[in-house]
Amino acid sequence: MQKITLLIHCEDQSNIIASVTNFIATNDGNIVYIDQHVDREQNIFFMRLECEFASNTFALENFKQLFSTTLAQKFQLEWKIFAAERKPKMALFVSKYDHCLYDILGRYNSGELFLEIPFILSNHLDLKPIADSFNIPFYHVPITASTKDEAEQKQLELLESHAIDFIVLARYMQIVSKTLIDNYPNKIINIHHSFLPAFVGAKPYHSAYKRGVKIIGATSHYITEVLDAGPIIEQDVAHVSHTHSIKDLIAKGRDLEKIVLSNAIKLHTKRKVMVYNNKTIIFS
Amino acid sequence: MQKITLLIHCEDQSNIIASVTNFIATNDGNIVYIDQHVDREQNIFFMRLECEFASNTFALENFKQLFSTTLAQKFQLEWKIFAAERKPKMALFVSKYDHCLYDILGRYNSGELFLEIPFILSNHLDLKPIADSFNIPFYHVPITASTKDEAEQKQLELLESHAIDFIVLARYMQIVSKTLIDNYPNKIINIHHSFLPAFVGAKPYHSAYKRGVKIIGATSHYITEVLDAGPIIEQDVAHVSHTHSIKDLIAKGRDLEKIVLSNAIKLHTKRKVMVYNNKTIIFS
Amino acid sequence: MQKITLLIHCEDQSNIIASVTNFIATNDGNIVYIDQHVDREQNIFFMRLECEFASNTFALENFKQLFSTTLAQKFQLEWKIFAAERKPKMALFVSKYDHCLYDILGRYNSGELFLEIPFILSNHLDLKPIADSFNIPFYHVPITASTKDEAEQKQLELLESHAIDFIVLARYMQIVSKTLIDNYPNKIINIHHSFLPAFVGAKPYHSAYKRGVKIIGATSHYITEVLDAGPIIEQDVAHVSHTHSIKDLIAKGRDLEKIVLSNAIKLHTKRKVMVYNNKTIIFS
Amino acid sequence: MQKITLLIHCEDQSNIIASVTNFIATNDGNIVYIDQHVDREQNIFFMRLECEFASNTFALENFKQLFSTTLAQKFQLEWKIFAAERKPKMALFVSKYDHCLYDILGRYNSGELFLEIPFILSNHLDLKPIADSFNIPFYHVPITASTKDEAEQKQLELLESHAIDFIVLARYMQIVSKTLIDNYPNKIINIHHSFLPAFVGAKPYHSAYKRGVKIIGATSHYITEVLDAGPIIEQDVAHVSHTHSIKDLIAKGRDLEKIVLSNAIKLHTKRKVMVYNNKTIIFS
Repeated sequence: MQKITLLIHCEDQSNIIASVTNFIATNDGNIVYIDQHVDREQNIFFMRLECEFASNTFALENFKQLFSTTLAQKFQLEWKIFAAERKPKMALFVSKYDHCLYDILGRYNSGELFLEIPFILSNHLDLKPIADSFNIPFYHVPITASTKDEAEQKQLELLESHAIDFIVLARYMQIVSKTLIDNYPNKIINIHHSFLPAFVGAKPYHSAYKRGVKIIGATSHYITEVLDAGPIIEQDVAHVSHTHSIKDLIAKGRDLEKIVLSNAIKLHTKRKVMVYNNKTIIFS
Repeated sequence: MQKITLLIHCEDQSNIIASVTNFIATNDGNIVYIDQHVDREQNIFFMRLECEFASNTFALENFKQLFSTTLAQKFQLEWKIFAAERKPKMALFVSKYDHCLYDILGRYNSGELFLEIPFILSNHLDLKPIADSFNIPFYHVPITASTKDEAEQKQLELLESHAIDFIVLARYMQIVSKTLIDNYPNKIINIHHSFLPAFVGAKPYHSAYKRGVKIIGATSHYITEVLDAGPIIEQDVAHVSHTHSIKDLIAKGRDLEKIVLSNAIKLHTKRKVMVYNNKTIIFS
Repeated sequence: MQKITLLIHCEDQSNIIASVTNFIATNDGNIVYIDQHVDREQNIFFMRLECEFASNTFALENFKQLFSTTLAQKFQLEWKIFAAERKPKMALFVSKYDHCLYDILGRYNSGELFLEIPFILSNHLDLKPIADSFNIPFYHVPITASTKDEAEQKQLELLESHAIDFIVLARYMQIVSKTLIDNYPNKIINIHHSFLPAFVGAKPYHSAYKRGVKIIGATSHYITEVLDAGPIIEQDVAHVSHTHSIKDLIAKGRDLEKIVLSNAIKLHTKRKVMVYNNKTIIFS
Repeated sequence: MQKITLLIHCEDQSNIIASVTNFIATNDGNIVYIDQHVDREQNIFFMRLECEFASNTFALENFKQLFSTTLAQKFQLEWKIFAAERKPKMALFVSKYDHCLYDILGRYNSGELFLEIPFILSNHLDLKPIADSFNIPFYHVPITASTKDEAEQKQLELLESHAIDFIVLARYMQIVSKTLIDNYPNKIINIHHSFLPAFVGAKPYHSAYKRGVKIIGATSHYITEVLDAGPIIEQDVAHVSHTHSIKDLIAKGRDLEKIVLSNAIKLHTKRKVMVYNNKTIIFS
């Protein structure tokens, strides 16, 4: 049995669901999961399907070709098809904070994450021992004002040579370049340590402390060119009080960051996320 | 445009999604919402659809007849079809506590609930003034050991004469009879003031206090013959501490009860709940 | 037995706790509750005490006088003393939304709130029937650009003549004047329908929808001259998804608003809130 | 400056707060934190203080002696005094699950936990590599029906020879013996993977799945002789739905277990927990 995941969006129109499901059935596929959403403000239809085909007769490229020239044309669909058994390859970018790294590698090691980690990259050497202890290649690509372009070039080469599918910034403290973003659109996941859009930018826990909020949060989002303004994948919060110092907020926030980021990674690798107009549709 | 909601469950089998969607399309319906679930343990398939038909040609009874004799037979479907524009009729059973009653009537008055309330029934007169202030008929049906059968008969007559679709026990402190349950299967919604299955039965806040739990909860479920063991529709919890007295737990719990019960009512009236083997499927 | 609540703040210094507790003991009081906090950034000490005195010998004014001339002077204390049995008087300002009003009055009626409501005030007549059904005086004070000063004068007269202690803006859709704020410093409680500081100003649910956030919130705070920037008393949030329309966010948000506002009212009336430098200390 | 933490409980009585604070002041101590609680049902008073003394004159043993013979006798106090700078020594008992172990060691490594870990003990060898990678001694003490007494003896020797203060069962899948419990009363912290008292005993996620609950939880508690019935330190929950398989519940639960257990460890090591009559008082 071969399994595929199909993501579609297009202008909302009649009979789209019946047409797609009928197409799958006609081509000897069996739909095992279907979810759909209509954005009524923008009149856009979104759908996610998981389908099974008999392995001996199914050829993914043929199916894509057929889908593309018939249904996709007729309904003017934007679409993506993924072979379900293929693990996406994730590059981990880190800096000096280790909590998200430990969390992701612990989950990875225990088989919780459906992905491969070809390498970890950092502008510092601090976390190399952790990468070593999990037997994952670690690349040190330092960044200074004068070496920025060079470093970026090195990053792109590494990403390409390892056939990376998506990048996770696990508290990577650098601004990512436009080139990188353009090469990996909606494929660079960041964790920001506030409930966006509150406290954009640096030192959100300090700002939260100063404002005297009673909840803090963390937000995982795709990186776009506008700082901390990309499509939000996942958010969570925790209650705090006047008794929490900035240090306490940072400690409490670490737990939020870990869980929110790992949830975003899971959603992304399960192809549960669609992006449209700087917002996400998250199929459950 | 006429809109229907279709709920289906059956043994899981190939091509069921494509067949149903195709059937709708063939009969000039347009699917505007589809959600499905497969219970892999029990191999049962569940689906919920919302479909639109042109008003001038569509006849609900004809459609039901056709669906029943073709698709339903072929796949051995259990199914229900609801006309979306029809408001379900809800009977409210209360006793002496007023918080859930106020909450439901406040929402009802402001148009938040898609339902009608033909009457409120109680074994006490305490809450009659509230019913009066919202201009809803109030029936006083006292219950004593000797009048129990008679009271129950009176209840059944009222429910039938008002064509009630479902019953909400808004902190109604009486055990509901088997006859009532049999007449309204999975149509009697109760609110229990604990996170079931913890603290079944009377005085759950007292038990929670005694056990020293750090969270309390509320659970909305359909009434079955086994006390507090029916299918759970919705649950929510709140954190508490050693500083909370039993009275504090009761006060904090009231807010949970209100929200959990009103959410269950909304899910039920939107036909978002399916019940199978004493568990619920809640479509989002 | 006579009970008082004592709130103190001052520059942090040695022996302040022992000195205050000793003072109470020396004057035949028994401390039944003590809580304290030190803001290490600003070096400020905060304390809240509940003390009991024998009724036949205790005179509140004498005690205040003594406290003021001895301890308060020695440690340069800012302090407030409240007789615990006196119910604070709350004025309710509303506009057209009824959910917070229903919620507060339901709690008030069932004895959950320790306060009196001398009157409800609105710039519209829409909610008068609700006030009537709870038998609470309702004043209609319309506001237009030309009558603003006059309306404000009328408000101040009503507040004064009813000896109002604090004001609750239960979705009162008007900007409150500087004069009112100056007359009731940290005594005007507002409910804002977002997790501040995100989505300051009008239509926060629309902004939340547009940004695609995965959580929405509500914030209760004291009104200051800067819009939505006053000291935060209480916040809560709820998870949302792409399936929620703006209308859904508004409906879900109403439940947050109700609970957050009523919690803030309870904290305020129990004298659990201290304000310093635009932040709150909330004693539990 | 030398800092101590003082925990007291006794029958509730007048002037206890003033007397204790006065005693500290008289002995040249400065109270920097005070919290107290009265259990009105059982008429028991609880207090936690942090005090600072000038290092050159303060002798902890002398202070204890004086406190014991004066105040403690007068008020019949139960009390404990801890030197704040001394890190408690924690033994980690594990079995085959690694998520709590990774979580605790990650926090330990980054300095988040105020404690020492002299050793990790397991009845299996599976997690030895993790202990090795963090450079913590690992003892393998296998347990079979015939070697149970011997294994227990070995455990007690290890605990004693390393001067262990408290034990954490990080998903240690064995029933702990009465002897161990008696030697470490309210000093053995367990994590149970349900919101107790629901789903006591083995396989709680399976039971939760079967019951169809909409929330799952985790509970950290001190071990007593009655299974899963000891004093609860911390609980947390997560929302689930019909879409979650047992495997999903287990994965989601792991995150709860990690956070709940590490919070309990923090509360214990900060001396924030008091136990009375099988319940905890948790000072914030």
